Amino acid sequence: MAKRLSVRDPVPSDIDIAQSLDPLPITEIAQSLGLDDDDFITYGPTKAKVKLEVLEKHRDTPNGNYVIVAGITPTPLGEGKSTTTVGLCQALGAYLGKRAVTCEFNLHLTGDIHAITAATNLMAAAIEARAFHEATQSDAALFGRLCPAGRDGARRFAPIMRRRLAKLGLEGAADPDALSEEDRRRFARLDIDPATITWRRVLDTNDRFLRGVTLGRGPKEAGHERESGFDIAVASEIMAVLALAGSLPDFRERLGAMVFASSKAGEPLTADDLGVSGALAVLLKDAILPTLMQARFLCFYQEGEGWKEGRGRTPDCSLEESIAQLVGRGSTTLEATPVLVHAGPFANIAHGNSSVIADRLALKLVGPEGYVVTEAGFGADIGLEKFMNIKCRASGLTPSAVVLVATDVALTRAGCANLARHVANAAAYGLPVLVAINRFATDTDAELEAVREEALAAGARAAVVCRHHALGGEGAVDLAQAVVEACAAPRPEFRFLYPPEMPIEEKIRTIAVKTYGAASVSFTPEALASIARFTEQGFGNLPVCMAKTQYSFSNDPAAKGAPTGFDLRVREVRASAGAGFIVPVCGDMMMMPGLPTRPAFFEIDLDTATGRVLGLS
Amino acid sequence: MAKRLSVRDPVPSDIDIAQSLDPLPITEIAQSLGLDDDDFITYGPTKAKVKLEVLEKHRDTPNGNYVIVAGITPTPLGEGKSTTTVGLCQALGAYLGKRAVTCEFNLHLTGDIHAITAATNLMAAAIEARAFHEATQSDAALFGRLCPAGRDGARRFAPIMRRRLAKLGLEGAADPDALSEEDRRRFARLDIDPATITWRRVLDTNDRFLRGVTLGRGPKEAGHERESGFDIAVASEIMAVLALAGSLPDFRERLGAMVFASSKAGEPLTADDLGVSGALAVLLKDAILPTLMQARFLCFYQEGEGWKEGRGRTPDCSLEESIAQLVGRGSTTLEATPVLVHAGPFANIAHGNSSVIADRLALKLVGPEGYVVTEAGFGADIGLEKFMNIKCRASGLTPSAVVLVATDVALTRAGCANLARHVANAAAYGLPVLVAINRFATDTDAELEAVREEALAAGARAAVVCRHHALGGEGAVDLAQAVVEACAAPRPEFRFLYPPEMPIEEKIRTIAVKTYGAASVSFTPEALASIARFTEQGFGNLPVCMAKTQYSFSNDPAAKGAPTGFDLRVREVRASAGAGFIVPVCGDMMMMPGLPTRPAFFEIDLDTATGRVLGLS
Repeated sequence: MAKRLSVRDPVPSDIDIAQSLDPLPITEIAQSLGLDDDDFITYGPTKAKVKLEVLEKHRDTPNGNYVIVAGITPTPLGEGKSTTTVGLCQALGAYLGKRAVTCEFNLHLTGDIHAITAATNLMAAAIEARAFHEATQSDAALFGRLCPAGRDGARRFAPIMRRRLAKLGLEGAADPDALSEEDRRRFARLDIDPATITWRRVLDTNDRFLRGVTLGRGPKEAGHERESGFDIAVASEIMAVLALAGSLPDFRERLGAMVFASSKAGEPLTADDLGVSGALAVLLKDAILPTLMQARFLCFYQEGEGWKEGRGRTPDCSLEESIAQLVGRGSTTLEATPVLVHAGPFANIAHGNSSVIADRLALKLVGPEGYVVTEAGFGADIGLEKFMNIKCRASGLTPSAVVLVATDVALTRAGCANLARHVANAAAYGLPVLVAINRFATDTDAELEAVREEALAAGARAAVVCRHHALGGEGAVDLAQAVVEACAAPRPEFRFLYPPEMPIEEKIRTIAVKTYGAASVSFTPEALASIARFTEQGFGNLPVCMAKTQYSFSNDPAAKGAPTGFDLRVREVRASAGAGFIVPVCGDMMMMPGLPTRPAFFEIDLDTATGRVLGLS
Repeated sequence: MAKRLSVRDPVPSDIDIAQSLDPLPITEIAQSLGLDDDDFITYGPTKAKVKLEVLEKHRDTPNGNYVIVAGITPTPLGEGKSTTTVGLCQALGAYLGKRAVTCEFNLHLTGDIHAITAATNLMAAAIEARAFHEATQSDAALFGRLCPAGRDGARRFAPIMRRRLAKLGLEGAADPDALSEEDRRRFARLDIDPATITWRRVLDTNDRFLRGVTLGRGPKEAGHERESGFDIAVASEIMAVLALAGSLPDFRERLGAMVFASSKAGEPLTADDLGVSGALAVLLKDAILPTLMQARFLCFYQEGEGWKEGRGRTPDCSLEESIAQLVGRGSTTLEATPVLVHAGPFANIAHGNSSVIADRLALKLVGPEGYVVTEAGFGADIGLEKFMNIKCRASGLTPSAVVLVATDVALTRAGCANLARHVANAAAYGLPVLVAINRFATDTDAELEAVREEALAAGARAAVVCRHHALGGEGAVDLAQAVVEACAAPRPEFRFLYPPEMPIEEKIRTIAVKTYGAASVSFTPEALASIARFTEQGFGNLPVCMAKTQYSFSNDPAAKGAPTGFDLRVREVRASAGAGFIVPVCGDMMMMPGLPTRPAFFEIDLDTATGRVLGLS
């Protein structure tokens, strides 16, 4: 499945090797997955959107093995999850001859993030306009404009209005003119309580001056000003909806169910109530298709901040050495593996996992003997816990094995304790846990062996030293072998951490105590009030999506290792009713980054003679 | 060049004909233009981006004929420019056997508008962040962060910083550490005067609550709040830059020259000074490629507001009649003509014309015997004037003929006077003017003949009655014939309305008096101060891009026909230094539309069973 590429001759002499390496045509990658020409739409030579009809076509194909890659609590050197994900997939494909697909986050290689931005902001404009029109019009005028008389003088409901009518118990209403005055008012007035609007605009730009804004400062909006702000686009609930939808109809329903505020009477108000949910679905009709690409694995020099995920080189190896290694091993270090790139919800306010639809598609495409490798954002206490209890609950898919990536762990005792707790947490789901130990040149054999023993003692099925940073897929062959064996072995039943019907407070407490090692959980009065309101509104059975720092099991980023005995304080609680989860917020969550004095853009330019991008490493 | 499509059998029975008509593969359209496979990149089956290398490849091919379609002052029934543009091109191609390409606005069919939004907002974030960092850091800290020491302890300038160094007369500076303290300060401190920031954020959403916003209301930005706002995305100067750039290097330079504010000393500050211009170019590297598509010309029913541009049907003809007509004429009414879709700057704050690059490309592709038909936004007093004096000045291209579209003109005496002035204005450029009279069922032969005579008396070379609304390209054959003859005939020299070195005030007066028929022009003190400042800053030789209502020659939308004797009041004057024009603003320009009580989105939904869009007519 994964293709090996041959190295160019003569030997390239510098970093240009990374840019000059031609990717395979995406049509070849698609063919290698058994996709027909009608199954996908190409977007340029290296990208294709896969149609959802493929799912239906492969309805009777059993799923492949489903491998989730998670990390320990991140250190300054990173976690190495992305390189392990791709390296493992390449080892499975190019070295062990298995059908293998990687499912990854959307790093806005396609226009999906723009579609999400547009949809989020259309909904914001719709909320604001509706509140404004309701504030400035009589009941009769409002109703008359919502259901204007046609050429024949008769009023009619738009089809989408049936959703609000049904919510009001007016399913049968066919003729707007036949509604009672009271029902007209109930239909036309959402009666938005401005203080409860939770829907924020988004931009895919780090713009700190948009974190807080006063809206409606134009002269025509005078008297209607409101405090709000912008988040970064990946924080939009629509991104989480895209990631959790299992099908197109499910996507449409989740969009309609998104809650943006309460009415003054305390009822949740949705995108369906606004009549905007159909337009959102149309804006997102291409974004719901996973994008097929290829991952290339290549050692190259990274100036400045050392090694980075997804682009690996061993940190001790210079540019020249790296290229020498690369060229010396000929065709074995340059590989292309199919990747389904889809969705990328923020891991601190949402669930931080790529899409259910891409995973479902990939599991069908690889078939029962194949492997789908996907990644969970942040450390396993966040990304893996949400993968299990939110994503797998939504998809109904059962994972086959967990790969836990340990980088830099040999250097510290705290690292080992941290690893051990993550292993134990992962094993508690009833899945085989494989620890991938990324070897650094500064690690001694004795240190690596100590880590291996710690991992096995904590319940790992195997712990394997990996060198895919330096060697590409070849460096992950031992790990791939261990994954194949683990997937083939009999295993205990998969277990969620909590049942959905557990009360919200209890769900939070379960995660905090069992996964984080907290002694207790405390709530602000605001948090308790929100929990009571969401329970009252019918959202009590949703899973919980914790918003907590990724730098510690606790809510104190400085508490390294495996802290115990702490209290987890829940400051506020939000609901993402369309995505389908409750968000307890612990501490300050950064929803809109800022730019430093010298942003990365200073390095970037376009070579206008060649059209090449300069300064992106 | 234009392809005729055959009608389906059996006869389709309703509006679905519009959606069910399969477009030709875009590769076929590309081949019909003589494009090789390497010359374009497909984006799905119906769109392709044309590479700029094609321009170089056809360097020695003489240009084709360059026909501009403009309108009279618009009436409630519209102007019919877009249908005439496409109909004419189809008549030239499918009926007269000429090579013909339409160049059109980007109606955000491709992702270009998103790229422009992202680039505009990145620049806004960069401005805000720079002002914030300058306000909160010492000179030394600021310089140290802009030029941080590398691993070897040495500081270095990013390549893009050479642009600011050159502006400060420090071209030769190689080593940041060697700069004097004063030069470090000058380099590091843009010293942005917050009151002069003209750069606004944009969104492609009608969101009235963003017209005016207070920025920086987050706790970490306290004390740095600022009043600003968002415009609709097409109003971004970047859209105008995209439309006016003649090549990739020219595009890069124009982006760098965009002015966002003055320093406290009154110097203009640019995207190059911010160091963000290279990143803008990279964000826009696909947007600078024109998108090849096909126009289909098809009669179909439009409920509600009557006939709409680009989709023509005669207003008197029902759905059934329209389809009967369509099907009755078999292969002659369904045609596909190649269209280069590129850029769409707002016609009220920018120049309202599609891109120079698309026109240049099309003129090469059709070759010396071929025809490129493009359209100017709004009435000819705005769109055509700007096409001539801004777009043709920037491109160096000389148009061959003007087609002036007259719709609904037979109904009113004011319409005839309006048409006559537009004809005379267009003829003053030294070009043949052809009047296309769109025939409506309510027009009598006598009325149409009266309009024809009026047009000829005003200086038109020909005036032709058209029925492409009902008949597709066949209905524009007479017009096409007249265009071919006009392009072949000897013609006087092309003349601009004013020389670039004329003072700004005089340029405004020339347009107002000669094109609009004004008796005088008056300026507010603010407008005069801006003109003085721009002249001082070296922008005095830029052409002028008037921001005026499109509903009258004057600045009073109610003054129909051909008003005279009025004063044109210039309220304020802006500069778009990268796009390369000065913008005198007369009256209130709406830069961000709002949503009505019942927005169009109420009609729109996605059929989740078929993936089809519902409610878009």
